[in-house]
Amino acid sequence: MSDVSCPDSADRTATVDLLGMLALGELTAFSRLAADADMAPAVAGREAFARLALVEFGHYELLLARLRELGGDPEGAMAPYAPVFAAYHERTRPGTWLEAVVKAYVGDGIAADFSREIARFVDAESRAAIEAAMDDRERSAVLVRLAAEGMQSDPHVRGRLALWARRLHGEAVSQAQTVAAQRESLTTLLTGSGPQLDLVALGELFARLARRHTERMAALGLEA
Amino acid sequence: MSDVSCPDSADRTATVDLLGMLALGELTAFSRLAADADMAPAVAGREAFARLALVEFGHYELLLARLRELGGDPEGAMAPYAPVFAAYHERTRPGTWLEAVVKAYVGDGIAADFSREIARFVDAESRAAIEAAMDDRERSAVLVRLAAEGMQSDPHVRGRLALWARRLHGEAVSQAQTVAAQRESLTTLLTGSGPQLDLVALGELFARLARRHTERMAALGLEA
Repeated sequence: MSDVSCPDSADRTATVDLLGMLALGELTAFSRLAADADMAPAVAGREAFARLALVEFGHYELLLARLRELGGDPEGAMAPYAPVFAAYHERTRPGTWLEAVVKAYVGDGIAADFSREIARFVDAESRAAIEAAMDDRERSAVLVRLAAEGMQSDPHVRGRLALWARRLHGEAVSQAQTVAAQRESLTTLLTGSGPQLDLVALGELFARLARRHTERMAALGLEA
Repeated sequence: MSDVSCPDSADRTATVDLLGMLALGELTAFSRLAADADMAPAVAGREAFARLALVEFGHYELLLARLRELGGDPEGAMAPYAPVFAAYHERTRPGTWLEAVVKAYVGDGIAADFSREIARFVDAESRAAIEAAMDDRERSAVLVRLAAEGMQSDPHVRGRLALWARRLHGEAVSQAQTVAAQRESLTTLLTGSGPQLDLVALGELFARLARRHTERMAALGLEA
C-alpha cells in the first residue's frame, strides 16, 4: 500500500482504472435510480429516488475529479466496465417499486462495501475520495424507510423480497468476482507492492461482504 | 390575466394545478433523460444527458417552490397528470441513442413552448417561475451538438429521424390538446377572467407550436 498522494506509475494506472470502474458504477446507478423512480406509487417516492440519484451523480463527479488529478482519461478508464454494469442491471431489472427499493439498498450496498474493501489498496487521497463517494449512511436510512412503508401496505410481500435480495446478492458478488479476477490492473493493485490479496484473503473479503449483506437484510426485517 | 403575485382563489387553484402539471413533467423528464443516458455510445454522451437531467430536476424544484408558496399540495397537484406523461413516454420510447437525443430536443421543446404559452395566463410570479423553468437555450445547444455528432457517424439516418420527429410532434401535441381540453382548472385559466382563449385562439397557439417545431427541425438539419 502506497500511502502517498502520488502513487508510482504502475499503481497510478491501476488506481485510474479502479476510479474509472467506480465512477461508471455511480453514473450507471444514477441512471437506474432515476429510471426506477417512475415505479413509485406516489410522487413523494419518485422525488426521494430522484434525490438519491442526484447524490450518486455527485459521487461520480468526486471520483472523476480524482481520476483527472492522477492524469487519467475518463472515457478510457470507464468504457471497459460498461458491459459489467449493463449485465448486472439487465439481470436485476426490478418488476415492482419495492423490488427497486430493495435493489437500491442491497445491490448498491454490496457495491459500496466492495469498493471500500478495494480502497485499502490505493493511495491516501484516492482512498479518501472513494470512501466519501461510498458513504451510504444517509441513503440507507431513506431506503429502509421506503421499504418499510411499502411492506406495510403489502405484508405478504416479505418472502418474495427475501428471495429477490438473495438473487441481488448473488448477481452483485458474481460481477465483483469477475472484475477482481479478470481486470489486470485490479489484480496489479490487489497483489502488488502493498498488502497481498491472495485467494484466501479474497475469500475472506467476500465473506465480509456476505456478513454485511446479512446486516442489511436484518435492517429490512427480511431473512437473509 | 391577473398580474399580481397573489392570484384570487379560483385562479390560485388553477395555477397550483398548472404548476403541478409542469413540475411532474420536469420530474418525468428527469427520469427519462437519466434512463436514456444509458443508450449513449460513449461515456461523454451519458454524462451530457445526466447533466441535462440534473437541470430538469432544478426546474422541478423551482416550480414546486412556487406551488408551495401558493399553498398548494404537491402530491395532489401532480398525481392527476401521471397518466398523461406515462402515456406520452410509453408511446415515444426511443430505440436508439439518436432517437433519444431528438426526443429530448423536439419533445421537451414542444412541452416548453406549450408551457410558456400557458404561462401568459397566470400571475406574474408564477409566470416568472415557469419561464425560468422552461428556458431551454442551453440544453438546446447541447442536444443539437449531440444530434449532429450522431448523424455524422451515420449519415443515412436522417430520413428515419425526420419521421421520428414528426411522430414526436404528433404525440406531444395530442397530449397537450388533451390536457388543454379536459382539465377543468386549465380551462378556467384559459377562458377565465383574463384574456380568453377560445377555440380559434387555441388553434393559433398550436400553429405557433408547429412553427417553432419547424425551426427546431431546421436546426437539426432535418425536414419537418
